[in-house]
Amino acid sequence: MDKITLGHGSGGSATADLIDHVFKKYLNNEYFTADDASVLPRPLGRIAMSTDGFIVSPAFFPGGNIGKLSICGTVNDLACMGARPLYLTCGFVIEEGFPIAKLEEAVKAMAKTAAEVGVHIVAGDTKVAGKGQVDGLFITTTGVGEIADDVHTSGANAKAGDVIIVTGDIGRHGTCILLTRDDYGIEAPVTSDCAPLWNAVKATLDVSHDIHTIRDATRGGVGTVLYEIARESQVGIKLDSTKIPVADEVRGVTGMLGLDPLYLACEGRLVYMVPEKDSQAVLKALQASDHTQGAAIIGKVVNDHVGQVTLTTEIGGETLLPPPGNELLPRIC
Amino acid sequence: MDKITLGHGSGGSATADLIDHVFKKYLNNEYFTADDASVLPRPLGRIAMSTDGFIVSPAFFPGGNIGKLSICGTVNDLACMGARPLYLTCGFVIEEGFPIAKLEEAVKAMAKTAAEVGVHIVAGDTKVAGKGQVDGLFITTTGVGEIADDVHTSGANAKAGDVIIVTGDIGRHGTCILLTRDDYGIEAPVTSDCAPLWNAVKATLDVSHDIHTIRDATRGGVGTVLYEIARESQVGIKLDSTKIPVADEVRGVTGMLGLDPLYLACEGRLVYMVPEKDSQAVLKALQASDHTQGAAIIGKVVNDHVGQVTLTTEIGGETLLPPPGNELLPRIC
Repeated sequence: MDKITLGHGSGGSATADLIDHVFKKYLNNEYFTADDASVLPRPLGRIAMSTDGFIVSPAFFPGGNIGKLSICGTVNDLACMGARPLYLTCGFVIEEGFPIAKLEEAVKAMAKTAAEVGVHIVAGDTKVAGKGQVDGLFITTTGVGEIADDVHTSGANAKAGDVIIVTGDIGRHGTCILLTRDDYGIEAPVTSDCAPLWNAVKATLDVSHDIHTIRDATRGGVGTVLYEIARESQVGIKLDSTKIPVADEVRGVTGMLGLDPLYLACEGRLVYMVPEKDSQAVLKALQASDHTQGAAIIGKVVNDHVGQVTLTTEIGGETLLPPPGNELLPRIC
Repeated sequence: MDKITLGHGSGGSATADLIDHVFKKYLNNEYFTADDASVLPRPLGRIAMSTDGFIVSPAFFPGGNIGKLSICGTVNDLACMGARPLYLTCGFVIEEGFPIAKLEEAVKAMAKTAAEVGVHIVAGDTKVAGKGQVDGLFITTTGVGEIADDVHTSGANAKAGDVIIVTGDIGRHGTCILLTRDDYGIEAPVTSDCAPLWNAVKATLDVSHDIHTIRDATRGGVGTVLYEIARESQVGIKLDSTKIPVADEVRGVTGMLGLDPLYLACEGRLVYMVPEKDSQAVLKALQASDHTQGAAIIGKVVNDHVGQVTLTTEIGGETLLPPPGNELLPRIC
């Protein structure tokens, strides 16, 4: 048996086999249960809860796969609220005929990524869709995390004077997926930035009790996220375009395709808004953590141009970053 | 704009419009957030967590639709652990071209069903898949509930001597979906039993502090669930086939098709294992609650035939219920 069959989704013995030989093999932990829901110890503080669906095509790409991505996405959403990820659930929708070895590769990546940040995968669900009813594999993850009492991050909490930090070079994931699809016939060694960032966030919470905003720049990229924060916090955002880290190979590809790295998805990059007094400590904590060594200060929060993002250009001028619109960016998820 | 477009999944302004005009319109509550995760008060006890994916075809059927189903499924999974449902998240994968009016109908049903049991829908995610990448609409819901300290239900807790109660007539949902698909050309007025059962479970927890097992008989039906419990609790299960409630119209259709109602899915039926001393109180509490008025005692847990389900027949004999196997039951989800 090397392919998924409709029987794997029947709820009968083939489903039980799949659970035992693929899911439990990698994901087993003390909270796994045969019951309808996992029973879990009470979290220590307020909880954060988030859900995200993953339909990335292709599902396997340089630097990751849909399994790793599905854990990073939800772990990072919780981390943005300053929440230690405690429990994750995952729902799979698998197309009939999907290779079990590929499923196993994705599940293995999920287990490894979850272990890196100490989150438990406590429950799962598998549905098999008929051939053509779904494109390969969809994964939906949902996470619960606990928030320390003194942490209050929000996209609405940015304040004029805050320093803006991005945790690494931007646009890698979006560029990587475009190249992997090979629609453009461009070859370049771009790997996805996909990474679980709780450990890095924890390090920053340890050095600052006054972080205003953390947000991950996934769909829509850093540009979309900054416009969201400018609107929610009713502030202006001023970027120094010479400070925004972009890898040479990403700059090369996006230049050829006429795309702006600020609007390409990241899957392992956060944007921080931090009071100036704490900004160096936060920056250093990030630069000392895995996955965020490339952290850089890219701008500041201001009182004017409320709701807008402006860029100071290389020749010293100031220009408006075109706001995110209805434009169909290359679909990468 | 009356159909879903790829732009609705871009994370840009079309996504924001869809969230405002469809999702927030019906689901809005104090915990809705523009941030990456909802921040929620700490639950009062141990928590239960469960996830379920819904890919039912057709997505609209007599007695419900995929939206209602997606709330009932997860609410009922939590209820089986004796957990009051607190928070739900929902992940949508929508096919390009899906009618927005239909989506709205599903979301409206979600809101109504959630309100009935007092659960908050605290976060959501929307992905749009290209035409042909997904069949209409998939919904994945995940729930967190809180469990009172004195409640310890599990499929592994059934004990010889326990009375077995089913909360209503069985096989409705599976039969309804088969008829709605019209593959068989049979017309019969069968509606789905799809219902959220927390209020009924709460009523039983109020009258008994010694409920051993509650499990919902979804995929695989009551027969599969009983085999699971027999195995997990290492007991035998003896059913009185004359006591198993089956609606006449369900009996008629399943008779024609050669299907056993014990193996057809329910979406609003629970199986209880309760000590004999509490069984009448639990039965009466169910019969007095919404959605479970048809509750009936259908058998008992025994010490022999461990791992098996036997049926006493109408003429007084005893027969083995064929165990659930790899057989492809009609796919109803």
